[in-house]
Amino acid sequence: MTNLIDGRAIAEQIHSETAQRVTALKSRGVQPSLMFVRVGDDPASKVYVGMKEKTAARLGILSETRVLPDSTTESELLALIHKLNADSAVHGILVQAPLPRHISETNIYSTVLPQKDVDGFHPENVGKLMLGDKTGFLPCTPAGVHELLIRSGTKMDGAEVVVLGRGNIVGKPMAAILIQKDKNANATVTVCHSKTRDISAHCRRADILIAALGSPEFVKADMIKPGAVVIDVGVNRISDPAAKGGSRLVGDVDFTAVQKVAGKITPNPGGVGPMTIAMLMQNTVRAAELLAKS
Amino acid sequence: MTNLIDGRAIAEQIHSETAQRVTALKSRGVQPSLMFVRVGDDPASKVYVGMKEKTAARLGILSETRVLPDSTTESELLALIHKLNADSAVHGILVQAPLPRHISETNIYSTVLPQKDVDGFHPENVGKLMLGDKTGFLPCTPAGVHELLIRSGTKMDGAEVVVLGRGNIVGKPMAAILIQKDKNANATVTVCHSKTRDISAHCRRADILIAALGSPEFVKADMIKPGAVVIDVGVNRISDPAAKGGSRLVGDVDFTAVQKVAGKITPNPGGVGPMTIAMLMQNTVRAAELLAKS
Repeated sequence: MTNLIDGRAIAEQIHSETAQRVTALKSRGVQPSLMFVRVGDDPASKVYVGMKEKTAARLGILSETRVLPDSTTESELLALIHKLNADSAVHGILVQAPLPRHISETNIYSTVLPQKDVDGFHPENVGKLMLGDKTGFLPCTPAGVHELLIRSGTKMDGAEVVVLGRGNIVGKPMAAILIQKDKNANATVTVCHSKTRDISAHCRRADILIAALGSPEFVKADMIKPGAVVIDVGVNRISDPAAKGGSRLVGDVDFTAVQKVAGKITPNPGGVGPMTIAMLMQNTVRAAELLAKS
Repeated sequence: MTNLIDGRAIAEQIHSETAQRVTALKSRGVQPSLMFVRVGDDPASKVYVGMKEKTAARLGILSETRVLPDSTTESELLALIHKLNADSAVHGILVQAPLPRHISETNIYSTVLPQKDVDGFHPENVGKLMLGDKTGFLPCTPAGVHELLIRSGTKMDGAEVVVLGRGNIVGKPMAAILIQKDKNANATVTVCHSKTRDISAHCRRADILIAALGSPEFVKADMIKPGAVVIDVGVNRISDPAAKGGSRLVGDVDFTAVQKVAGKITPNPGGVGPMTIAMLMQNTVRAAELLAKS
């Protein structure tokens, strides 16, 4: 079928734009750089940071990863962030979630200098997003979904959008992006979540459905308006005795069935995931550009 | 009819709580204080600031108003704000909108120290609101609407809420308050605006309808689900030859007709307006309490 929104291909378009910006910065003597901070031994975190490191290297962005033990205290981590904030050679700082329980993610994210907050998690950047102030950094996953919609030619102006999930990383900022006064937004957005009375009814009226609930294959074919655009942000590990290691990853959308009804749909993997990394690289280069200008 | 949500009475409840907190602060030697800054001669601004001054005085909050000429430059205004930020006797700073065109409201609001931003307009406070981080200050009008809903016994948990308007002062923060994970929120929220395809259809499915469009008597009786709670945030001046001065103020809701269909409804005036001032006073006392603690 040809109704796939190819996140890998669109991410590659963005990567090539980003690589050009890296080249331009280097010709002016600026080496864009991104610092990863990873605490503890979470295997998924290792994989994510590894993928981001590889992409950074491919685009000419210098990256380095500080790995701290699980026993790191909050004040030790804060001290490291203050040091990175002060280091003018570091343009972007990414503290990989999840952090150990004894460390407050809120405290950590609000300590990263907003100008280096390439994850877009600092309250000031979140506030700027909501206010429509474009001087901030957008969180990578919702910004990536937005780019997918733009570059797949999806009309957002006046569209009915339903966002499933109200998390701080995807659901809330996704809604904030799409209600802005902008021809690539201007959508009528409804945010649904675990307390919503009739999620299916909302889904069925959506021109664009964005699933970020964290619930395996929650979105079924009978919840889709024929022709709707369906974006699957979910990454859920489910047990499957037939799979290697006894488990496999699935999205929030029952892909095979939904694909038959949807106008366009993201595969998963190969949809939103590559876009998150593309936006992170774009944010990093922009941080370097802004610092070079100032 | 008895389906009115009496904003004046609820504001008085809050005022008496605030006055008690003022007394407690004074007994510890802290005089809560609020500084108003007004630029130019906008007559509505004079009225608004005057009302806020009077309420502050009644509650025992010290207030002062700095009136600057229309010709004030942005850097002069910024210099004043920096001075007030540094003055430990000033707990709250309110720069009354609208500002003259040559001054960027964005620059001004983001210069007020977040800890003194009792208007809740600083990006950091807006971001904290969105993230569900309760250490920030909420913007007064949507916080006042939220209090009206709570104190009128309106069930928000699981309710379908439609917010008309996507402004930075009411619509967007209102939606952000009501989608939070909280028993006094947990609503399924849709934000409608000028680009929405069928506003009436959305309104008709709302358990709670919050009108903040700035469009005189836009909401008609046939747009209301019988029994719905209707909150009118609008303040619009319309010409009326029969009225004193040739004009009068109306809300965004066609009150007389809508009241017959609604379960509960705010009068206008006497609904949201008094609550905005009540929340401003509450924010100011909280700012003083937080500074006293630190």
